[in-house]
Amino acid sequence: MTAPKKVVLAYSGGLDTSVILKWLEVEYGCEVVTFTADLGQGEELEPARKKAEMLGVKPENIFIEDVREEFVRDFVFPMFRANAVYEGLYLLGTSIARPLISKRLVEIAAETGADAVAHGATGKGNDQVRFELSAYALNPEIKVIAPWREWDLSSRTRLIEFAEAHQIPIAKDKRGEAPFSVDANLLHTSSEGKVLEDPGKMAPDYVYQRTEDPLGGPDEPEYIEIGFEKGDAVSINGEAMSPATVLTRLNEHGKRHGIGRLDFVENRFVGMKSRGIYETPGGTILLEAHRGIEQITLDSGAGHLKDSLMPRYAELIYNGFWFSPEREMLQAAIDKSQEHVTGTVKLMLYKGFCRTVARWSDHSLYSEAHVTFEEDAGAYDQKDAEGFIRLNALRLKLIATRNQRVKG
Amino acid sequence: MTAPKKVVLAYSGGLDTSVILKWLEVEYGCEVVTFTADLGQGEELEPARKKAEMLGVKPENIFIEDVREEFVRDFVFPMFRANAVYEGLYLLGTSIARPLISKRLVEIAAETGADAVAHGATGKGNDQVRFELSAYALNPEIKVIAPWREWDLSSRTRLIEFAEAHQIPIAKDKRGEAPFSVDANLLHTSSEGKVLEDPGKMAPDYVYQRTEDPLGGPDEPEYIEIGFEKGDAVSINGEAMSPATVLTRLNEHGKRHGIGRLDFVENRFVGMKSRGIYETPGGTILLEAHRGIEQITLDSGAGHLKDSLMPRYAELIYNGFWFSPEREMLQAAIDKSQEHVTGTVKLMLYKGFCRTVARWSDHSLYSEAHVTFEEDAGAYDQKDAEGFIRLNALRLKLIATRNQRVKG
Amino acid sequence: MTAPKKVVLAYSGGLDTSVILKWLEVEYGCEVVTFTADLGQGEELEPARKKAEMLGVKPENIFIEDVREEFVRDFVFPMFRANAVYEGLYLLGTSIARPLISKRLVEIAAETGADAVAHGATGKGNDQVRFELSAYALNPEIKVIAPWREWDLSSRTRLIEFAEAHQIPIAKDKRGEAPFSVDANLLHTSSEGKVLEDPGKMAPDYVYQRTEDPLGGPDEPEYIEIGFEKGDAVSINGEAMSPATVLTRLNEHGKRHGIGRLDFVENRFVGMKSRGIYETPGGTILLEAHRGIEQITLDSGAGHLKDSLMPRYAELIYNGFWFSPEREMLQAAIDKSQEHVTGTVKLMLYKGFCRTVARWSDHSLYSEAHVTFEEDAGAYDQKDAEGFIRLNALRLKLIATRNQRVKG
Amino acid sequence: MTAPKKVVLAYSGGLDTSVILKWLEVEYGCEVVTFTADLGQGEELEPARKKAEMLGVKPENIFIEDVREEFVRDFVFPMFRANAVYEGLYLLGTSIARPLISKRLVEIAAETGADAVAHGATGKGNDQVRFELSAYALNPEIKVIAPWREWDLSSRTRLIEFAEAHQIPIAKDKRGEAPFSVDANLLHTSSEGKVLEDPGKMAPDYVYQRTEDPLGGPDEPEYIEIGFEKGDAVSINGEAMSPATVLTRLNEHGKRHGIGRLDFVENRFVGMKSRGIYETPGGTILLEAHRGIEQITLDSGAGHLKDSLMPRYAELIYNGFWFSPEREMLQAAIDKSQEHVTGTVKLMLYKGFCRTVARWSDHSLYSEAHVTFEEDAGAYDQKDAEGFIRLNALRLKLIATRNQRVKG
Repeated sequence: MTAPKKVVLAYSGGLDTSVILKWLEVEYGCEVVTFTADLGQGEELEPARKKAEMLGVKPENIFIEDVREEFVRDFVFPMFRANAVYEGLYLLGTSIARPLISKRLVEIAAETGADAVAHGATGKGNDQVRFELSAYALNPEIKVIAPWREWDLSSRTRLIEFAEAHQIPIAKDKRGEAPFSVDANLLHTSSEGKVLEDPGKMAPDYVYQRTEDPLGGPDEPEYIEIGFEKGDAVSINGEAMSPATVLTRLNEHGKRHGIGRLDFVENRFVGMKSRGIYETPGGTILLEAHRGIEQITLDSGAGHLKDSLMPRYAELIYNGFWFSPEREMLQAAIDKSQEHVTGTVKLMLYKGFCRTVARWSDHSLYSEAHVTFEEDAGAYDQKDAEGFIRLNALRLKLIATRNQRVKG
Repeated sequence: MTAPKKVVLAYSGGLDTSVILKWLEVEYGCEVVTFTADLGQGEELEPARKKAEMLGVKPENIFIEDVREEFVRDFVFPMFRANAVYEGLYLLGTSIARPLISKRLVEIAAETGADAVAHGATGKGNDQVRFELSAYALNPEIKVIAPWREWDLSSRTRLIEFAEAHQIPIAKDKRGEAPFSVDANLLHTSSEGKVLEDPGKMAPDYVYQRTEDPLGGPDEPEYIEIGFEKGDAVSINGEAMSPATVLTRLNEHGKRHGIGRLDFVENRFVGMKSRGIYETPGGTILLEAHRGIEQITLDSGAGHLKDSLMPRYAELIYNGFWFSPEREMLQAAIDKSQEHVTGTVKLMLYKGFCRTVARWSDHSLYSEAHVTFEEDAGAYDQKDAEGFIRLNALRLKLIATRNQRVKG
Repeated sequence: MTAPKKVVLAYSGGLDTSVILKWLEVEYGCEVVTFTADLGQGEELEPARKKAEMLGVKPENIFIEDVREEFVRDFVFPMFRANAVYEGLYLLGTSIARPLISKRLVEIAAETGADAVAHGATGKGNDQVRFELSAYALNPEIKVIAPWREWDLSSRTRLIEFAEAHQIPIAKDKRGEAPFSVDANLLHTSSEGKVLEDPGKMAPDYVYQRTEDPLGGPDEPEYIEIGFEKGDAVSINGEAMSPATVLTRLNEHGKRHGIGRLDFVENRFVGMKSRGIYETPGGTILLEAHRGIEQITLDSGAGHLKDSLMPRYAELIYNGFWFSPEREMLQAAIDKSQEHVTGTVKLMLYKGFCRTVARWSDHSLYSEAHVTFEEDAGAYDQKDAEGFIRLNALRLKLIATRNQRVKG
Repeated sequence: MTAPKKVVLAYSGGLDTSVILKWLEVEYGCEVVTFTADLGQGEELEPARKKAEMLGVKPENIFIEDVREEFVRDFVFPMFRANAVYEGLYLLGTSIARPLISKRLVEIAAETGADAVAHGATGKGNDQVRFELSAYALNPEIKVIAPWREWDLSSRTRLIEFAEAHQIPIAKDKRGEAPFSVDANLLHTSSEGKVLEDPGKMAPDYVYQRTEDPLGGPDEPEYIEIGFEKGDAVSINGEAMSPATVLTRLNEHGKRHGIGRLDFVENRFVGMKSRGIYETPGGTILLEAHRGIEQITLDSGAGHLKDSLMPRYAELIYNGFWFSPEREMLQAAIDKSQEHVTGTVKLMLYKGFCRTVARWSDHSLYSEAHVTFEEDAGAYDQKDAEGFIRLNALRLKLIATRNQRVKG
């Protein structure tokens, strides 16, 4: 790879990406463009602008954007249409944010004439893969720089030395190492590393930052109603709102009741296992609610096909293949299924848990006339079941007859 | 179908199956053999014996058996190895009990020279399918009689009249119709019908019978440790116990904390949707624990394959195909994966919810050396990630290049 | 079911459906509308009109239509985009024609105010299922009449007697029973029953009607080039043509070389096995060609996903679920994959076999620069493979280490 | 990686691996052990021994083995039980040989105290992946050396210079570059590269080495009968024979009739497309025959599950994951299905093509009594089909009713 001339860096304003910013200039003698996104991580963005300016980035090279609506509308919601969970439990909160960041990095590179993008993910994790696969898929000529895989600043001490040598301000609480590593966006907060590295030890309470302790939550359950249209949540308790607002509100509900905590050991794409603590308050409610509305609006053919495709879909997102033809094929199938996933779900939230307690819809396929224990006025002829069973049994009978014969 | 001469009836001792018993004699003039199983439904069996005797069944034709260990060991545990859930949420508590009952019916038919079996399931539900597919798969010549599909006693009034006309005792509380229908075994209790038929209305509190109200559960979480060997739970808090005892104890834990309640609308195999309230206290804990131990003992290749096979496996059990070649093929694959699923999981139980908080195993694949944020002493070369990503990206780059070219 | 008042009958003009026509009038006292379609079965339609008139059907109740273009464009081609084969070998020639016929029956019922449709398929086969599932999916209130499941004319003798009693003309060669049963349309001809019922005996030569004996085919191979656009064949040897024309021409090529003969035992949806002789001359060439063009225009992610979905897609079509949400979901995924399946395939046809020998496309993903054994000018860095392999191997190493440890 | 001390080299005796042998000594100063296997590639092995000796390898370090029976019994046959084809057409002839070679390399390393293995595969292909994943899976501490990824001898000229400098004899026809690259074993011969690199150009006739030109094959078809037991071929025309002998004989039959030629563009695991000419004479016959016997001995549940698992299974073998838990899980499922795949298939071989024309078995599930067009003596009640269809249609009707309602 020839040295990059102009690099768009995914910049948080924190110490690590500030060091990367300076290191790129020093190492490659290149111009740096910074991109700082509000994905709902709960931090103000203006300090990042000031810090970038202070580090010498030209004003026209500083990009700061609120992408929350795009994030929820174009990434989170399509994923939730699939009821996607990775390895049975993980709601993919980190995974789903990466393609959006890469997309903007590549777009800003095109706008600013940059030939490279850079990110601050380490060489052991999934995020590097997600950033880079997305970048290459969107611009096959782009260069990607991953300083953590390249430099010799891997110890904290050397990182601090580099920062001091280059006049990068260091917040007091950043001098020492954090007891664990955190990533956050509107969908979730993840914590991993250090004190969490032994999966046989319970995570300390202070790790949980995004949700109240369920023990301390309200002593009475709360009931909420979520409205859906074509598979996407569009209202809470009858109040229509935008995608990001829906998720923000659900986060508040979930936080209050301590909903969405997950202690999880997962298989990284790069081949190792890792343990993370995930908090996905609003997302956990949303998944439960989406399943609830599908229960009455999706038929079994569509539902079972979705269930069987889901693990692969979730794996693709986890592994970084959002911008791949196979994810788009699966999305086409999933979206096709959501045309009638419209209606309302009522959920109970209480002490760390939420569950569907009622659901109704003009698009419902539930037929009380068919299912009733009462007289059904001819909606269903019980005699039909006999033929149904006998033909479903036919092959099993033929097998049993064969097996008797060859044993006999 | 020629008339049966001798019928083995799945007999609970309740009013409905007592009426069936008599009806079979009246309708077909056949001899009736009764089979009453203790599947952990929580009822004593001796009253069923007395009632059968009173209805004139010969003593040698009364079969009463405790099949709880067989049920858990040969049906429930193999199913939990697969983490089977139907339509995302249902733990298949009713579905998994049916094949065992059919198996004993067919075996008793062989022992007693009966040419038919009979069950009390209705013509609208899944249970008729499960009973009959299993029976036919085990004995292709067996006749199956499903009185609910045949007779004219479908109204409560006529059923009671028939009972009175044939000296079948009627408990006072059975004269009127139950407000909903219940099925129970060691794994779960299901309630459906009548007051539950509108899925848009919350289930009344009195429907829940198997679990305490989470609101009234202990105010402190309880922590338990479940030991696994080759995918099956073998101990609780260090105490080894039999399969049925493990599940019984987990039920007690779950009941106390109100764990395992599910309000669910599902797709029946016969084509309609129905709404059920399921309570699976021990099973819900067991599923969470099994996932927890797999997290550290199963690698991603095996785990992801299991995840992708699970929906089909669950559907087969739900639809009644336990005794089918395809279920056995999937079981062979699943069992193969469980050879190292051995270790211990610690769970928190609290107010209706349980979750894994720690897990450890001699068979663990988790490698702190690889995953650590600290120096890893060469266990992992971060540079490997570059080639890994570049080759995973290659096809995406080729696609992007092609797409640029044909658009250009 | 209340008696139908007006029935739309799928009418071929042959003896069997003529008997059905009359039987419907006699049995139900209902008015009959006939629908006769040219699906490319190779028979003239006007005789059917005359026969219907002669049997007393009102002129406005006689519908005769050439649906070949619709058949190929909206049914055959979408299916071939999926490379659909049932049970490894069968190209679904009969299965794919049924939904179109049902669709027109239901539409004509709506136009003519009929409340029922009728077909001449037997109660043992798949076609009854395909006709009826399609009809019910398109009009849930429609009545379906399947005379072969209802009447008492199942022996040839009684059928002939009925025909004679009702002045239905009987062609001389129809008095005796045919040595086997035939279905044909533009995609294929199937033969089954009677002389073919023993799958251990070779089919007699006279069964093959649609293809020349490969032994008698040209002694020189023929080469043809098929052009594709978005997954559909649009030209042969550079000459653009309509869907039905493409298939007609490919049938001529295939017939000449004896291509597309299949002797097959399949699993019917109704539970039994049956043996059929299928001749699919043009379709066999088309499938091979479609695979050939996908080889260079589809990437592995899309291709492998398609391969994994195909068996389910084929099963749905075989079982009669063309008009189902899950087939439509799969179609959406498949169609999404075909956007760049554009280019040309060259095939060799010779003595019963065809195979791709070259393919080219502006949309090709094949990169000689990457694959070449020669110097590749930096397109591919072989060192990347090392990291790629090492990270793919990581989990396998961790497994091996674990296994050594627990055995040790 | 520290330098290896003793390396087991997969050694063919040809120029390339002889250069590798010497290069390993020069580059690493290590001792070299050679392993030369007879996989049925059609070359004598003794010249390899002499060449190794001549290059200074100690006699006790020269391992030459006939592994044909193990190859067919433990690798080829298990794979054929799955009807495995990669991307619709490729019979995996190269892929399936690699794990066996790696297994022996690792075993010989253990026997001889070697700490590394080496192979002659390039850095662009799949074989490096297959060799190395297998090696790491069997011995996680083994070092793997892939000289083609490391050295600077990539041009033919420099390779020849190195050979001359180290007294490695060069056959006259090896001075120039071969017009394409060949790999062969008992299952197939593959040819790729150079003259074959443009997939838009037909392969020259001289590329085909393993099969006669179909044009020149016998003018009369040949019929053979293959006997199967539990999914494996055990006899030809009634003569029992060992696995390797079966495949050898089928190769002779296939060669004579020009069967098994494939011109193919495939997706390599490393991300690029490549074009190969494959000749798999015996394997092509075997696949057709195995499908033929499964047609009557496997029921639809098992068969359709196998079909849906096959693409993933084939992909695993292609990508080099033979020794992975997921391949073993799938194998367990597949092997479970083969218990009754026993019987005889008759095939016609003619001019490049083979097809099943009859099959019979004591384990047959085919029931003439059920399928017959004649009177079936009550084996099947056509009325059963009505209930079967009506319940299968129920959900489709509910969908249609719903769709009408929400549009209305």
